[in-house]
Amino acid sequence: MMAAAHGRITGIPGVCIATSGPGASNLVTGLLTANTEGDPVVALVGSVPRAMNTHRTHQSMKALDILGPASNLAVGIDVEDQAAEVILSAFRQAATPPKGVSVVNIPQDVQKGNSKFAAFRPEAYPAPKFGLAAPSQSQKVLEMFQSAKMPVLFLGARASSPIVVTAVRKLLSKFPLPTVETFQAAGAVSKELVHLFYGRVGLFRNQTGDKILSKSDLVLAVGYDPVEYDAFTWNPERARPVVHIDYQPSDYGVYYSPVAELLGSVAENLNFLTENTRSITDNTQSEFFKTLDKEYHAWQSLPTTSRFDGDLPVHPLTFVTELQKRVSKDTTVCVDVGTVYIYMMRYFFAYEPRRLLCSDGQQTLGVGLPFAIAASLTQDPPCSAKVVSMSGDGGFMFSSNELVTAVQQKCNITHFIWNDSSYNMVEFQEEMKYGRSSGVKLGGIDFKKYAESFGARGYRLESAKELREVMDEALGFEGVSVVDIRIDYSEAGKLARDVIEEGWN
Amino acid sequence: MMAAAHGRITGIPGVCIATSGPGASNLVTGLLTANTEGDPVVALVGSVPRAMNTHRTHQSMKALDILGPASNLAVGIDVEDQAAEVILSAFRQAATPPKGVSVVNIPQDVQKGNSKFAAFRPEAYPAPKFGLAAPSQSQKVLEMFQSAKMPVLFLGARASSPIVVTAVRKLLSKFPLPTVETFQAAGAVSKELVHLFYGRVGLFRNQTGDKILSKSDLVLAVGYDPVEYDAFTWNPERARPVVHIDYQPSDYGVYYSPVAELLGSVAENLNFLTENTRSITDNTQSEFFKTLDKEYHAWQSLPTTSRFDGDLPVHPLTFVTELQKRVSKDTTVCVDVGTVYIYMMRYFFAYEPRRLLCSDGQQTLGVGLPFAIAASLTQDPPCSAKVVSMSGDGGFMFSSNELVTAVQQKCNITHFIWNDSSYNMVEFQEEMKYGRSSGVKLGGIDFKKYAESFGARGYRLESAKELREVMDEALGFEGVSVVDIRIDYSEAGKLARDVIEEGWN
Amino acid sequence: MMAAAHGRITGIPGVCIATSGPGASNLVTGLLTANTEGDPVVALVGSVPRAMNTHRTHQSMKALDILGPASNLAVGIDVEDQAAEVILSAFRQAATPPKGVSVVNIPQDVQKGNSKFAAFRPEAYPAPKFGLAAPSQSQKVLEMFQSAKMPVLFLGARASSPIVVTAVRKLLSKFPLPTVETFQAAGAVSKELVHLFYGRVGLFRNQTGDKILSKSDLVLAVGYDPVEYDAFTWNPERARPVVHIDYQPSDYGVYYSPVAELLGSVAENLNFLTENTRSITDNTQSEFFKTLDKEYHAWQSLPTTSRFDGDLPVHPLTFVTELQKRVSKDTTVCVDVGTVYIYMMRYFFAYEPRRLLCSDGQQTLGVGLPFAIAASLTQDPPCSAKVVSMSGDGGFMFSSNELVTAVQQKCNITHFIWNDSSYNMVEFQEEMKYGRSSGVKLGGIDFKKYAESFGARGYRLESAKELREVMDEALGFEGVSVVDIRIDYSEAGKLARDVIEEGWN
Amino acid sequence: MMAAAHGRITGIPGVCIATSGPGASNLVTGLLTANTEGDPVVALVGSVPRAMNTHRTHQSMKALDILGPASNLAVGIDVEDQAAEVILSAFRQAATPPKGVSVVNIPQDVQKGNSKFAAFRPEAYPAPKFGLAAPSQSQKVLEMFQSAKMPVLFLGARASSPIVVTAVRKLLSKFPLPTVETFQAAGAVSKELVHLFYGRVGLFRNQTGDKILSKSDLVLAVGYDPVEYDAFTWNPERARPVVHIDYQPSDYGVYYSPVAELLGSVAENLNFLTENTRSITDNTQSEFFKTLDKEYHAWQSLPTTSRFDGDLPVHPLTFVTELQKRVSKDTTVCVDVGTVYIYMMRYFFAYEPRRLLCSDGQQTLGVGLPFAIAASLTQDPPCSAKVVSMSGDGGFMFSSNELVTAVQQKCNITHFIWNDSSYNMVEFQEEMKYGRSSGVKLGGIDFKKYAESFGARGYRLESAKELREVMDEALGFEGVSVVDIRIDYSEAGKLARDVIEEGWN
Repeated sequence: MMAAAHGRITGIPGVCIATSGPGASNLVTGLLTANTEGDPVVALVGSVPRAMNTHRTHQSMKALDILGPASNLAVGIDVEDQAAEVILSAFRQAATPPKGVSVVNIPQDVQKGNSKFAAFRPEAYPAPKFGLAAPSQSQKVLEMFQSAKMPVLFLGARASSPIVVTAVRKLLSKFPLPTVETFQAAGAVSKELVHLFYGRVGLFRNQTGDKILSKSDLVLAVGYDPVEYDAFTWNPERARPVVHIDYQPSDYGVYYSPVAELLGSVAENLNFLTENTRSITDNTQSEFFKTLDKEYHAWQSLPTTSRFDGDLPVHPLTFVTELQKRVSKDTTVCVDVGTVYIYMMRYFFAYEPRRLLCSDGQQTLGVGLPFAIAASLTQDPPCSAKVVSMSGDGGFMFSSNELVTAVQQKCNITHFIWNDSSYNMVEFQEEMKYGRSSGVKLGGIDFKKYAESFGARGYRLESAKELREVMDEALGFEGVSVVDIRIDYSEAGKLARDVIEEGWN
Repeated sequence: MMAAAHGRITGIPGVCIATSGPGASNLVTGLLTANTEGDPVVALVGSVPRAMNTHRTHQSMKALDILGPASNLAVGIDVEDQAAEVILSAFRQAATPPKGVSVVNIPQDVQKGNSKFAAFRPEAYPAPKFGLAAPSQSQKVLEMFQSAKMPVLFLGARASSPIVVTAVRKLLSKFPLPTVETFQAAGAVSKELVHLFYGRVGLFRNQTGDKILSKSDLVLAVGYDPVEYDAFTWNPERARPVVHIDYQPSDYGVYYSPVAELLGSVAENLNFLTENTRSITDNTQSEFFKTLDKEYHAWQSLPTTSRFDGDLPVHPLTFVTELQKRVSKDTTVCVDVGTVYIYMMRYFFAYEPRRLLCSDGQQTLGVGLPFAIAASLTQDPPCSAKVVSMSGDGGFMFSSNELVTAVQQKCNITHFIWNDSSYNMVEFQEEMKYGRSSGVKLGGIDFKKYAESFGARGYRLESAKELREVMDEALGFEGVSVVDIRIDYSEAGKLARDVIEEGWN
Repeated sequence: MMAAAHGRITGIPGVCIATSGPGASNLVTGLLTANTEGDPVVALVGSVPRAMNTHRTHQSMKALDILGPASNLAVGIDVEDQAAEVILSAFRQAATPPKGVSVVNIPQDVQKGNSKFAAFRPEAYPAPKFGLAAPSQSQKVLEMFQSAKMPVLFLGARASSPIVVTAVRKLLSKFPLPTVETFQAAGAVSKELVHLFYGRVGLFRNQTGDKILSKSDLVLAVGYDPVEYDAFTWNPERARPVVHIDYQPSDYGVYYSPVAELLGSVAENLNFLTENTRSITDNTQSEFFKTLDKEYHAWQSLPTTSRFDGDLPVHPLTFVTELQKRVSKDTTVCVDVGTVYIYMMRYFFAYEPRRLLCSDGQQTLGVGLPFAIAASLTQDPPCSAKVVSMSGDGGFMFSSNELVTAVQQKCNITHFIWNDSSYNMVEFQEEMKYGRSSGVKLGGIDFKKYAESFGARGYRLESAKELREVMDEALGFEGVSVVDIRIDYSEAGKLARDVIEEGWN
Repeated sequence: MMAAAHGRITGIPGVCIATSGPGASNLVTGLLTANTEGDPVVALVGSVPRAMNTHRTHQSMKALDILGPASNLAVGIDVEDQAAEVILSAFRQAATPPKGVSVVNIPQDVQKGNSKFAAFRPEAYPAPKFGLAAPSQSQKVLEMFQSAKMPVLFLGARASSPIVVTAVRKLLSKFPLPTVETFQAAGAVSKELVHLFYGRVGLFRNQTGDKILSKSDLVLAVGYDPVEYDAFTWNPERARPVVHIDYQPSDYGVYYSPVAELLGSVAENLNFLTENTRSITDNTQSEFFKTLDKEYHAWQSLPTTSRFDGDLPVHPLTFVTELQKRVSKDTTVCVDVGTVYIYMMRYFFAYEPRRLLCSDGQQTLGVGLPFAIAASLTQDPPCSAKVVSMSGDGGFMFSSNELVTAVQQKCNITHFIWNDSSYNMVEFQEEMKYGRSSGVKLGGIDFKKYAESFGARGYRLESAKELREVMDEALGFEGVSVVDIRIDYSEAGKLARDVIEEGWN
């Protein structure tokens, strides 16, 4: 997971290495996650000597069979002379959109061998570079764009690289295009352009962004990856005209049938639109948008059940508001999966790309802290600025032992635990489906002491009234701190309600 | 194989259909061949009802596991509602470069079911369209191209589509660029431009084209597919600077490490070069090229051991010469694998793309006749012009029973058998490796009678002196004719001799 | 297919060998068939040098991926020192029940290498030997057997080895047990015991044997392989108490839930029953069995629409009767799939095991002739006695070019073609399902001339009246002869009618 | 891992369940371990609805592809009517020797569906029962056994089930057969028979048992699984005559070529030997064995560098001795992988089967605590007796968060950490191979506080002099306690030294 975050943040493949057998198999969830989210990673794994590979012996395992389905490339070095080119291919493939994981298996006896070919120099393996879409398609899109009554910019996971973000901002600076993000696109819209931003969408079709998408007569889907938010969910009426702007052709489907495809460099194609569009319909002042604008910002002033008085637990939105005040746009915030991720990815503003990180494809529990460690280590100089991570109490336990790594590496991280002693996101969905929950109760851990056992600073926050002070203190602490917060999930069920139905008006 | 040739010739995926079990498995070699050669094919196969798929029952088989490695996409319709989009994906994928095979498995009970989604209209599934390479790469290539001392155009399998061929010809019309083809690129260079053509390369590095490649300081590899002629063979010194012009990034390797990649539409990128190049070095009048030019055309006047006198068998080059005289540039000539394919693909001129067909990736025996049947059936109107096919006597038997199809479908095909009663191409390679041959002796079939048993016309040609007359007669016959020719393979071993060594001068 | 028949007939794995790419993929249907039918085969295939296996190059293919699903063992020799033990494992696995296919892939460069281990001596690799079932199970079965009111012996594919057949006959000699065979068990019941034999079952549940099974209160399923005749078909009421006697545990299923399992050596376990059973209920003189006995033998006197007068085509049952008269119990009869196989496997008597051969698992078209060639070559001395094969006109064409092999190898084979110029078995099932047929019309081949083109003797038989004479002549001819018979399939639809319904009485 | 230990201890498959995506992939190491060690487990995993399985959507993953290579059976319920029989097969397969893992994938929409078949009753799915070997083999072995000069009993993983252990003890009670165990066979020899026990072998060929094996002229390998200790290691001279006594045929190999195989029920076949053997050569009083006997017990009186004085860390053998004194033969002791496992599995006595548990196939870090939790929960009544587990400080962190489960479930467990702040087993092997170590330094965790944060009791032991007291206290504590011990690994390198060479005398 650290390698994945390294790859996502820097654009350069993160590397992880493991021995044979369980060493290799332990990588599977991290690699699966990286591969699904499009994070460039190269994994090097060992295996028994070739002459033993038909036998049962210590740690014999079909590593490529197990890791292959979790990667874009899984290949063995079967003879020493392949080493240079296989490693090169692994790095190239990992960095080629849609990006992801390359696994290289190296049998023990090959590891000891010699190759007649030297390793390729790093300069020799730039990721492939792409250009402009087919002129016929570009022209078609240009015309549709200029004549659309309500065009919308829909930014996906592959709209989050710095080069694409630059192109997005150029387009928005010139044309007042209402913009919706998936969770992974967080930060694509800058603070200066936030008036065009109508929030993020994902999971439940009940957001302001969903309403805009559902009325648009031209959705420019930029770097959209359906793994985050499948079209079955946001386009069940199959009525949206979509332009697919991405490195690769779309997976046509009954719910996603683009009217045009701009293939190639996403940035180049956006720049083409920016440069060649004369004008577009400006809806942002319409009643519809004004209403949505109001709706979108309404949560900020919601009278939530908890505030800073009494002994109430902390309401999620209170936390979001208070954290927002305490971080700059350059702070990296890593969010684990769970109810915490729905709140954060919906309501937390990010104004720079790859600063608000989560797992929105596999929704893998446990990414919060490892992502934060990687974010800290990839800073220049390493560990020079505070990184924030957060998770539920359940998700935290999936990787919390990495606190020892964070402390050893001298990271500067504050990790917040939204603690309700249960798997809340599972719980409320179980209740929606079955009218009861099962197997979700947790609890019994003193997280303050837990953090301290690793040499980290621990905080325990029982009521909302302590929130601001503890937050200040923990964020001010240079090193690793863990804040255990009693969270108020009484309204969490709302996150999944009021789903937009077909024929919504 | 017919579906493959249909796909290759028309650009529209050929479709084949098979029942469960051996029905599906019988497709594997045809699909493997199509997929390797980049021929668009959609294969629909059946399987036992889903509820039986964990049991042993009649014709139970893991069709997708068997056919998957022979295709680019292998997918099942697991529930009826997937039918429309899975079929659409299959066609899209088959027609997207590098093109190839999509396999769709449909369990028996799903076949009988109903879907709530209608099939996609054909217009809805154009293959993806690609555009221009990254500007930085184009610019770099432009500069290299203009300053190269000996640039060479190296056309591969994906340079054989009509749209790419048009772009190639535009480039050559403007700039005197020495051109070399792989076997699959046959026909890219028109008759008007044949003075720039230095032959085809493949199999053994001993051709005029190989000599040019080995001296070039800039190889423009256009739609090059290493499966035809791997770089290990033509670039063992690892010294050629190559520009990779293709739909997809190159498979970097120790022997193929392009200095630049022009990715996207091959035609668009060639057109860019044509339009933006000011001038290139013209070598075609140099001593080097004049020598090669002479060498290349020398075979045409070779005193071959057989001619038209006496009772000698027919020399391959005599055949090539005589056939060349009797076909127009629009005649489709389908060549099966074997020694016949080395002679034909090296020495037979083709001036239009996809008129000289072979299998140069899998080198699959038996493609000759089925390719010819497809070529005949895809004519407009069907079977309206003579199609020529040829094979060795060994390869012929791999698919010769399809004569009944050719006759039933009223095809107009003349099939020539180069008959030496052995697997000659295996034989001479066995002799090169082991000093003896084994398991290659054939014979014992009366091909004239064999042809007649299917209602085709049969000819038997014992000596070269009959060649011209029989050829005229067979080619003049409207319908299916088979000509059994006693071939003279005494010089076949030469095809593999005089391989260019490292440091050649 | 020849290797499969060699393995089936001799019990020693047949071996086939193929080069890389299509060489290997061409094996898939033969291997799939062998593996499904339990025929021991070892296939050796080549592949590109290891250092090329990540590249596209001539005939690169994932041979083990393609052939793996068609085999019980698919393994590569990745380093030379594995050669001896991998080959040994391949032979052992192929010969271990349930028997089947082992594929060994040998990369080109490994083929040339040296191993420090010598090959295992043949004596070192006997197939594993099995013994008696668990005593608790044996005892339980003994009791059930002795108290059953209507026990039935149901012989399957793995009851066809000589050693099991001997045990079966011992049991039947001692106890009057009504016996039913699957197609592959043909010949298990000797001529002396034929009064206990109530025919074979398969495909359609409308046979005498089906009626017996449906009333039995104890089915002794011996070496039963559901691939031949799945329990869903013969036990849809889920009411039969079955004892599973086989080398391996049963695949429990909703339609096949044995009340006991006798695992281990099938012969040993049968002998145990024979030796330890005191007495069983004898039903063979009951009204029920007398009626069935009459029914079973009724077809022999059926007034079929064709006989020996006029110009009528030959009725299948007439053929069966006439052939039966002309062969001894030691004659091997190889039956291809199609309507011919339903008639033959139902109505043709065989009194020795592995003398009446077919493909009843994959139902693979084209097995008839290759099986006959193998049967001929495995005779001692080779080709010393007449072998009979037969096929439909459609199935014949799947492997008919092997006539050249049969002639070259000096086989003594008479092949009968039941010719109705269509795929009749598909045709009548299409008509049953859809009320019409499609894509089944064949014809246009002069099979007499076809046979002659290979140097075989050809016969064409237009009407039934010539049948006996031509049959005598063809069977009397020493060498390869082909008899093209106009067959009368007007009653073929009956083969699938009168299926026994639930609650039948 | 808990499910695996449940399966191993009770013989009844443990069950684990996981949601789609990372839920399923997180199981892989646990399942791989269980499958390799032969622990019966059924894993139920979810996946996206079938109609979504061709799309990228939240948590889409090829679960069966990833988990398949870690299991013996991996199958999906593709339609609801398969549910009953697929679940039945999963349980049957898991419990059939060699036992292991069955994975069942259930798509979301199938989970909600209905089947027309009820679940099978538990009584309906006994694991298959096996019987006696082939008489010819039994007889052969009997003769070899009686005439062997130095027969040795070599007990492997599948000799550890209660039923086999009973048979082993019967044999040893009657015949004085020197006995060697693999690690997984621990406990097969009872306290009464310990005079015949010459220790366990594994990892490095330098044990007393190895010396005996290397001189034996008849090794009775009972339930031997090469995954624990491959024959390449213990029989490099290829000179041992081995009798393979197991449920399944051996994997013949150059280093393991049994002279005979007794297949079927291991217990039945041992009982056969016991009952039919008249006498065997008794070597146990020979000089050779007396010397080995002395050698084997020598470690117990070794003057180790640490004892109970001063501030020295605890020597491993001191720990072993002291723990041995404090547990009964019925105490379950769970040992994690690492140097701790080499010491414990070599030197800790166990007198009942499945009381000394480890992972000796995959050597998976982290099994210690989860195994202990399962051991505690499977007690009758649950958690009624102390369970001991131990691990290194590195391995502990792989699953230490399960302390919360142990506490919640009210387990009675004492877990010892052999803490040297490094991955010692990797470290000393790195030093042996490369002369230096890399990436093995750990440390920085206060395990006492760590344990307390979960509500467990924590102890920290700095010097050997506290050992006995803390051990007493921790083992006396009812509940979960963790003891962090500073261990003395200064002699760990010895574990891998003095490996027996070819030609040893």
